[in-house]
Amino acid sequence: MTKGFKKRSRKAGLPPGSLVHIGNFSGEEIEISLIDYSQDSFIEKNDVQIQECLHFLSSPSISWIHVRGIHDTQTISTIGQHFGSHPLMLEDIVNTGQRAKLDDFKDQIFIVMRLLKYNFNTNEIVDEQVSMILGNSYVISFVESHNDIFDPIRKRLRNPESRLRHQGADYLFYTLIDCIVDNYFIVLEAFDNHLEKLEDEIVLSPSPRSLQEIQHIKRDVNTLRRSIWPLREVINNLRHVEKKFLSEVTRLHLGDVYDHAIQAIDMVDSFRDISASLLEIYSSNLTLKTNEIVKVLTMITTMFVPLTFIASIYGMNFSHMPEIDWVYGYPIVLLAMALTAGTMTYYFYRKKWLFN
Amino acid sequence: MTKGFKKRSRKAGLPPGSLVHIGNFSGEEIEISLIDYSQDSFIEKNDVQIQECLHFLSSPSISWIHVRGIHDTQTISTIGQHFGSHPLMLEDIVNTGQRAKLDDFKDQIFIVMRLLKYNFNTNEIVDEQVSMILGNSYVISFVESHNDIFDPIRKRLRNPESRLRHQGADYLFYTLIDCIVDNYFIVLEAFDNHLEKLEDEIVLSPSPRSLQEIQHIKRDVNTLRRSIWPLREVINNLRHVEKKFLSEVTRLHLGDVYDHAIQAIDMVDSFRDISASLLEIYSSNLTLKTNEIVKVLTMITTMFVPLTFIASIYGMNFSHMPEIDWVYGYPIVLLAMALTAGTMTYYFYRKKWLFN
Amino acid sequence: MTKGFKKRSRKAGLPPGSLVHIGNFSGEEIEISLIDYSQDSFIEKNDVQIQECLHFLSSPSISWIHVRGIHDTQTISTIGQHFGSHPLMLEDIVNTGQRAKLDDFKDQIFIVMRLLKYNFNTNEIVDEQVSMILGNSYVISFVESHNDIFDPIRKRLRNPESRLRHQGADYLFYTLIDCIVDNYFIVLEAFDNHLEKLEDEIVLSPSPRSLQEIQHIKRDVNTLRRSIWPLREVINNLRHVEKKFLSEVTRLHLGDVYDHAIQAIDMVDSFRDISASLLEIYSSNLTLKTNEIVKVLTMITTMFVPLTFIASIYGMNFSHMPEIDWVYGYPIVLLAMALTAGTMTYYFYRKKWLFN
Amino acid sequence: MTKGFKKRSRKAGLPPGSLVHIGNFSGEEIEISLIDYSQDSFIEKNDVQIQECLHFLSSPSISWIHVRGIHDTQTISTIGQHFGSHPLMLEDIVNTGQRAKLDDFKDQIFIVMRLLKYNFNTNEIVDEQVSMILGNSYVISFVESHNDIFDPIRKRLRNPESRLRHQGADYLFYTLIDCIVDNYFIVLEAFDNHLEKLEDEIVLSPSPRSLQEIQHIKRDVNTLRRSIWPLREVINNLRHVEKKFLSEVTRLHLGDVYDHAIQAIDMVDSFRDISASLLEIYSSNLTLKTNEIVKVLTMITTMFVPLTFIASIYGMNFSHMPEIDWVYGYPIVLLAMALTAGTMTYYFYRKKWLFN
Amino acid sequence: MTKGFKKRSRKAGLPPGSLVHIGNFSGEEIEISLIDYSQDSFIEKNDVQIQECLHFLSSPSISWIHVRGIHDTQTISTIGQHFGSHPLMLEDIVNTGQRAKLDDFKDQIFIVMRLLKYNFNTNEIVDEQVSMILGNSYVISFVESHNDIFDPIRKRLRNPESRLRHQGADYLFYTLIDCIVDNYFIVLEAFDNHLEKLEDEIVLSPSPRSLQEIQHIKRDVNTLRRSIWPLREVINNLRHVEKKFLSEVTRLHLGDVYDHAIQAIDMVDSFRDISASLLEIYSSNLTLKTNEIVKVLTMITTMFVPLTFIASIYGMNFSHMPEIDWVYGYPIVLLAMALTAGTMTYYFYRKKWLFN
Repeated sequence: MTKGFKKRSRKAGLPPGSLVHIGNFSGEEIEISLIDYSQDSFIEKNDVQIQECLHFLSSPSISWIHVRGIHDTQTISTIGQHFGSHPLMLEDIVNTGQRAKLDDFKDQIFIVMRLLKYNFNTNEIVDEQVSMILGNSYVISFVESHNDIFDPIRKRLRNPESRLRHQGADYLFYTLIDCIVDNYFIVLEAFDNHLEKLEDEIVLSPSPRSLQEIQHIKRDVNTLRRSIWPLREVINNLRHVEKKFLSEVTRLHLGDVYDHAIQAIDMVDSFRDISASLLEIYSSNLTLKTNEIVKVLTMITTMFVPLTFIASIYGMNFSHMPEIDWVYGYPIVLLAMALTAGTMTYYFYRKKWLFN
Repeated sequence: MTKGFKKRSRKAGLPPGSLVHIGNFSGEEIEISLIDYSQDSFIEKNDVQIQECLHFLSSPSISWIHVRGIHDTQTISTIGQHFGSHPLMLEDIVNTGQRAKLDDFKDQIFIVMRLLKYNFNTNEIVDEQVSMILGNSYVISFVESHNDIFDPIRKRLRNPESRLRHQGADYLFYTLIDCIVDNYFIVLEAFDNHLEKLEDEIVLSPSPRSLQEIQHIKRDVNTLRRSIWPLREVINNLRHVEKKFLSEVTRLHLGDVYDHAIQAIDMVDSFRDISASLLEIYSSNLTLKTNEIVKVLTMITTMFVPLTFIASIYGMNFSHMPEIDWVYGYPIVLLAMALTAGTMTYYFYRKKWLFN
Repeated sequence: MTKGFKKRSRKAGLPPGSLVHIGNFSGEEIEISLIDYSQDSFIEKNDVQIQECLHFLSSPSISWIHVRGIHDTQTISTIGQHFGSHPLMLEDIVNTGQRAKLDDFKDQIFIVMRLLKYNFNTNEIVDEQVSMILGNSYVISFVESHNDIFDPIRKRLRNPESRLRHQGADYLFYTLIDCIVDNYFIVLEAFDNHLEKLEDEIVLSPSPRSLQEIQHIKRDVNTLRRSIWPLREVINNLRHVEKKFLSEVTRLHLGDVYDHAIQAIDMVDSFRDISASLLEIYSSNLTLKTNEIVKVLTMITTMFVPLTFIASIYGMNFSHMPEIDWVYGYPIVLLAMALTAGTMTYYFYRKKWLFN
Repeated sequence: MTKGFKKRSRKAGLPPGSLVHIGNFSGEEIEISLIDYSQDSFIEKNDVQIQECLHFLSSPSISWIHVRGIHDTQTISTIGQHFGSHPLMLEDIVNTGQRAKLDDFKDQIFIVMRLLKYNFNTNEIVDEQVSMILGNSYVISFVESHNDIFDPIRKRLRNPESRLRHQGADYLFYTLIDCIVDNYFIVLEAFDNHLEKLEDEIVLSPSPRSLQEIQHIKRDVNTLRRSIWPLREVINNLRHVEKKFLSEVTRLHLGDVYDHAIQAIDMVDSFRDISASLLEIYSSNLTLKTNEIVKVLTMITTMFVPLTFIASIYGMNFSHMPEIDWVYGYPIVLLAMALTAGTMTYYFYRKKWLFN
Repeated sequence: MTKGFKKRSRKAGLPPGSLVHIGNFSGEEIEISLIDYSQDSFIEKNDVQIQECLHFLSSPSISWIHVRGIHDTQTISTIGQHFGSHPLMLEDIVNTGQRAKLDDFKDQIFIVMRLLKYNFNTNEIVDEQVSMILGNSYVISFVESHNDIFDPIRKRLRNPESRLRHQGADYLFYTLIDCIVDNYFIVLEAFDNHLEKLEDEIVLSPSPRSLQEIQHIKRDVNTLRRSIWPLREVINNLRHVEKKFLSEVTRLHLGDVYDHAIQAIDMVDSFRDISASLLEIYSSNLTLKTNEIVKVLTMITTMFVPLTFIASIYGMNFSHMPEIDWVYGYPIVLLAMALTAGTMTYYFYRKKWLFN
């Protein structure tokens, strides 16, 4: 399975809106956490049941429900019913192979984004899906694994002075998106470092292992592109949703996120250009090295071939070979050989075939 | 004939609207099946004559007529007359080389799509044409072969509780399209697996056979692109046809199909990128392997050339070669040879030409 | 001269509207034929003078004047004056290097298209220019050579039952365009067959001749693209000309031609992809074959080098070589040689360098 | 300096509107010529001072002032003041690295185009800048060198019957543009011939010199693209300037120039495709040739290696080698050698390594 | 870290509007200079405190505050508060990895551009960020290092006759932008020279060092593209901001800057094309050279192999070899060898393998 594509085929033939989990992270427990806050109040609860969250929704304070793990479709379905979410929205949440998208339902905004992580041990990029629903005074977010990139936001929420506490649910929604996009740069920079190291390795000492590495890099760039490219359109659309969803302040800040997304796309495009030429450099450099070796070896052989020929002449058994009986025949031949070798060396040297 | 292109040339010179079957599946019988249903009623008939279907059309219940096999242009023409379909529409049905398209006639919507199948034995992608007509309270679908990807839909129709039974003909129309698009993912995933296997094979043990395989892959990616790319526009246009054809619910669900189509296009684009570099990897890797072999062979030759030269010196027949008569001449020369061989081995080793 | 480009430079410096014939087919006679028809009447005249055609124009019946050969600019100029055609239009007719274009004059529509022919002997694509003028009740068409792709249309016109006889001049105009586009598929399919054959040849037995063939193919694909690509826009524009020129029926049928044009463009794009990779396959495969040969040859040489070395040792003339005088010295050395050869063969075999 | 780019950097830091000549043709004298004409009158003056031209402007007759040489910024500045031209316009005139552009001032239209010339001796493309100002009843044109591509227009102007004499200044303006575009085809066709010759040379007998030639070709295609591509937009914009500048007739003729520009762009695109593959063909063909030589050489070596081995066996000095003393030993060995050589030749022949 | 990308990841998790300096130039002091001018007055102060600048803002004269060094976020933040700039704007100023952008706040226009410098010693392109704010009667500019490309503008401001002194703040704003864009051409021309030198080196004497150089060039072209491409859109948007910001004169001059930006983009695109083919030329040329050497070496070996074979025949020790005892045996064999060598030389020569 090409990385980044999920086994969607399991869904073929099922009616639309069927909740079938398609994804990789299915071993862990589903865990729901709730933060309910206003300018003056702050409640944080971890590991709650979805039922406990309900009465917070009717209150004017802002609620953020964060669901870790989406493979238990039963729970997702319950959540959907509680919040009146459209079946197609729920289907998208559990079907983790989505590209970034924005859906604009009557009183909910639904966004799907890719969350990227860089595994520094294996130099691999892992991507999972984040889905977020923005309602009147609540935000519900779904992630696949027990990750914690939203921790800094929780910390800021706990601080009653923070700007987040003085703005609406839309600002929290924006902050989560901003956090995900900022996180891309960690991955992109780690990837950039890995790419540069690989490039140096290929230029200096290409090895057959590099070939597999290059293929990995290409697939990773592919994953990055598929994850980040659609964001441009999604965030642009988000900036132009109906007035009731987003305040002027949030809209302004989304312009900032949009700039960052384009910057990330720029980086991915650069990576693409660089990775495209890696194979060519690898081939070119490897051929160069082997050719160099073959050239030197052939030169050695070529040096000895005329010498051996001279020796073989005097190895012939003719009765009448006057040179054979000369007293200085042997040293003369040795001298002739040395001269031949010298002439060839000089010729190769002047042609710059040697030491080059 | 490049795969996916049909022998259209047979039509040249004929008046427009002439029904000439252009396609591959012409051996099998034409077979018509009918399902007529409403919330409360359900009638299913297989292998019917087209005449039997007619009175179902006037009833308010929804009729789905499914035609397997389109090479008998006479039958198609009869169906066309019964349903008042435009001659150009009928021409498109029997001319199976169409790209996906949508035509919006006065009281019928006509869609052409490609149906993909993956042959797991030969690793080949087979594509055929599906044409579907959406009328007031009926859907007529035409496929080329006796395939059965619509079976799950039939099963759902038989169930009086299913959503399909409570919606109009437009919802059935959408369901068929959704089923075809979902089916693409089965093909795409099988193709992806095949592609990955081939890629591994090329990196690990490239063989001349791979070259032909790569060409197949490229043509298959071409077929996939031609089949799936136009879908984007078709489904987008379908979402914006006149209000009378589609209910709000169906329109919403079509947005979902649109997302899936884009996802499929994403996958095809990935395949294109990957397949484009296969040839380069193959060449690169094969050259690498052959060069490696030639390098080793040349090295062996180069090792022996100076040794043979030394031996040939003492094979000369000069009368005055003092070394010849030395008692230790022979062992000394053997030693000299061993030293020469040792020096060269060490030199090659230090240069990392050996064991690398 | 790159195929498909005409010597336009002859026109440089002349005033606009100067009639200078630019083209290849200038040996043949100009030949004018006339068909004048209505639902009830039908007149067909070959090899007429242009003056004879004039009084047919004032009649309400539909006239089709077909001019074969355009190198006699005097005749074209006469025709232009008779029909009140704009000088720029006449200039385009005789200047045969035009790309497909549509001009919309006050009471005439002027279309230029490329007519493609496939020479099955030389596997070459020949293109010439067709210009057509649609007036109130007449169509005038100009072709470069005495070709006959419009014969089926003449046959249909002779039949009083045919649809053509019951429609206006615009429908005849459409029929001619449809005929030209349908004709493309004959050329495209022939080209496709040739391309596949070449591809197989390159994969199985590449020869230096293939290199030239590949260049031809690339230039042919270029010609195809230049001929067919602009059609998309031309036909689209034609569908949106003023109401007075085209009936609703003709407009609908033009939609059909548009689909065919896109299908042809699809095929050309496929050819482009395939032809682009031909050179790469050729190089790759040729290098593979030569490398294979060199590998085998080098292996043979490498096998004998150590054996020859052993023999040369015992060819030395040292007085004190104990082995020389052993009774079994000779057979032992032969055995040693056989063992060496055997070991190397086994080593090459295990490394899979042999028989692979 | 890459051809076609001018040393713009000299301008950095100067205020806008500073007249600094940037160009190559600075040795020649500035030369002004004037043609003033109406239907009935015609005055032609060469080598005039700019002051002499002034009173012609106020007359209702049409004046064409043609300035050859633009390096004397003082003169250009004087001209500018006389005609009330904007400083930015004058800056563009003397700064010869401009791409084609159109500026639409209050009562002047300003166009910059590239004038191409082909040097048939060096096969190089030279480009210079033409700037033209269209005023109420005058046209002012500026070229860099003393070229004469406008001579045919002068000749037509002298003829009182010519169309030019019966139209306004805008028609003269159009005629100059048409002349420049027609001139492109001379250059494109010469370039095309050169390209084809080079292509043949590369396929038939590639030499290291070709590599430099290919680089030249690529840079030339670049120059052509930069000169011709922007024309499309420029002429399109020109067709849509305010009504007061252009008559209906001129507008119609500009449509014709537009078609020619697109045709020229088509040719440049073709050249680009062809030139892009030249390097690949060159490499491929050169590798092919060298490989072929190495193959033949290696084959010769391989033929002799086993023969030499056989000879070296019987060159050994063992006391007990029964074959040595056989009477037919020598001819038998010679026969064995001939057989070995024959077998190998047959094997190579059957494998099609020989004579292929 | 790929050149041109800044360590943005440090910002991940921080609230928006947090001022974190991201950049390379953090060693130098922040230095603020002020120029306040009107038609009649001119005040210039270097190394001022930001507080000193404040009362100049309320005056109707135009103030230009230039800040060198942005790593001291405290100072930037103070400036921001004084001028009522939006926190997101300040964030963009200190975060130096921005692409060119334009933000249009209520009464300030904010532009970010890349400032390019060419290091003639290392042939490297250094880019830094310039941010500029246009207010009612002031311009504030921020650069990263103590550069001085704005010096010519200061000189012009000191001159009471200069146009700058008679125009508003918007004209100063335009002049700064123009200065930055003009400066690009210095960099582009230096880069162009370097590129040409490298190209010649690669064609004439490719060395392994070239491979690294090519990679540098590619990354530099990437930097150039990322810096210059977005400018097109930015300047276009700037031309269409609200009327109150820009006078008609400034708008006209911005059209000129726009043309220059497109010219710069043209050059960068050329560089891209050229640099893309460098690797191919390098590989091709290097392979050519090595092949040439191997060919000559192999030819030498091949010449001697048959000669050695002949010699080895007469080195055999058969008792009955009649030729051995011939008086002229030895010279005949030498002659035979000479003939063989001559024949081979002639063959190689006729095949043009020699001296070519």
